[in-house]
Amino acid sequence: MNLAKVVGTVVSTQKEESLVGLKFLILQKIDLEGAPADGTLVAVDAVDAGPGEIVLFATGSSGRQTVRTDKRPCDAVVMAIVDSWEVAGQTKYKKGVND
Amino acid sequence: MNLAKVVGTVVSTQKEESLVGLKFLILQKIDLEGAPADGTLVAVDAVDAGPGEIVLFATGSSGRQTVRTDKRPCDAVVMAIVDSWEVAGQTKYKKGVND
Amino acid sequence: MNLAKVVGTVVSTQKEESLVGLKFLILQKIDLEGAPADGTLVAVDAVDAGPGEIVLFATGSSGRQTVRTDKRPCDAVVMAIVDSWEVAGQTKYKKGVND
Amino acid sequence: MNLAKVVGTVVSTQKEESLVGLKFLILQKIDLEGAPADGTLVAVDAVDAGPGEIVLFATGSSGRQTVRTDKRPCDAVVMAIVDSWEVAGQTKYKKGVND
Amino acid sequence: MNLAKVVGTVVSTQKEESLVGLKFLILQKIDLEGAPADGTLVAVDAVDAGPGEIVLFATGSSGRQTVRTDKRPCDAVVMAIVDSWEVAGQTKYKKGVND
Repeated sequence: MNLAKVVGTVVSTQKEESLVGLKFLILQKIDLEGAPADGTLVAVDAVDAGPGEIVLFATGSSGRQTVRTDKRPCDAVVMAIVDSWEVAGQTKYKKGVND
Repeated sequence: MNLAKVVGTVVSTQKEESLVGLKFLILQKIDLEGAPADGTLVAVDAVDAGPGEIVLFATGSSGRQTVRTDKRPCDAVVMAIVDSWEVAGQTKYKKGVND
Repeated sequence: MNLAKVVGTVVSTQKEESLVGLKFLILQKIDLEGAPADGTLVAVDAVDAGPGEIVLFATGSSGRQTVRTDKRPCDAVVMAIVDSWEVAGQTKYKKGVND
Repeated sequence: MNLAKVVGTVVSTQKEESLVGLKFLILQKIDLEGAPADGTLVAVDAVDAGPGEIVLFATGSSGRQTVRTDKRPCDAVVMAIVDSWEVAGQTKYKKGVND
Repeated sequence: MNLAKVVGTVVSTQKEESLVGLKFLILQKIDLEGAPADGTLVAVDAVDAGPGEIVLFATGSSGRQTVRTDKRPCDAVVMAIVDSWEVAGQTKYKKGVND
């Protein structure tokens, strides 16, 4: 998994039928300081994440191990909204404080 | 998943039999501004995407979770045609407008 | 698998239900000399690894082949705590000595 | 999938038993102009590809979705020999012409 | 798959139980000339490879398709010991000669 920030959404009407009803989020990867890191991706939302939220995403076949993405052609899923993280005993991010 | 533009096609007659009838699209990855990004790939078309269209593709085993690609030796699939996307509340692409 | 050092943790309450009770560790990849290498990631702990410990992690679907992560949307798992490693017959790290 | 040129072969007698009889090809990735791109890999041949031929290869679990590679420890397979490809309506390669 | 040289081993006693008895090898990737290439990894040995030997390794779920690694949290396996390889009709490595 990796840390990312939800920065946008993608809309698609013509798609594989099993994807109907899923929300495609645009994620900006972030580093351990919360700063943007190289790389963006599109992931399906499994946890009702909103714009600007810091999340964890899982890729590959693990992207299909949620109720919403099971057996879908989905290779990345937002499976957790981050409350906080710490590195070497120091809090680097706390939701509502560092947003 | 990632954003890409359909820029070409690959033709092959001598191939694994399960691939007969599938269409191989050449994809140019694009960034969140719609500009070409590093990397091209070949993906099977699951949604009748045409040349020049902006699409989403899924890779790995998720590339096989469509009706057309199930159980095929296919590691990338175009599973959605993009109507629009927005970043930080701003529309970055709208089909028919930014093409 | 790759070598990494446990440098932190991520806390999340709003997440896919199957993830409840799992611990998310922040890993810093390290090279064969034990120095930090490019790349950090978040992995689920399957072996009660603690902060500062040197571990092995597995990614992709292999990240789900532990008792704790089976069928979870987890794409990286800490599946071993490293006692030592050697390169070309020379010990590069020994737990308790090089920590 | 990606485009590549078959540039060599690997011989191994001591190997996992399920791999006996398979042919290991060395592939040089190529770009959309047919020029060598960064990266080489070894793939199992599923379509009787010969030296110098331009092929498509699939990686990951999709590398096992051919009759020859099913359930084998094989993470890359040559699943198609390329006849031609075109980009933006222009033929970039035609077998027998651009070889 | 890719070519690599076995350069070391990792020892771990506290690990996922299904991994007991497996040998973790440190691999240095090599290029087609046999020179060290960017990247090292840790792979489970499925073929009794020894230090200094040139091998092929498979990654991802294919890393579990050997008798020894089946259903284990193992994302890389040494599945073949290399006797020789050739590029463009020229032998680049022959075991016992180029070691």
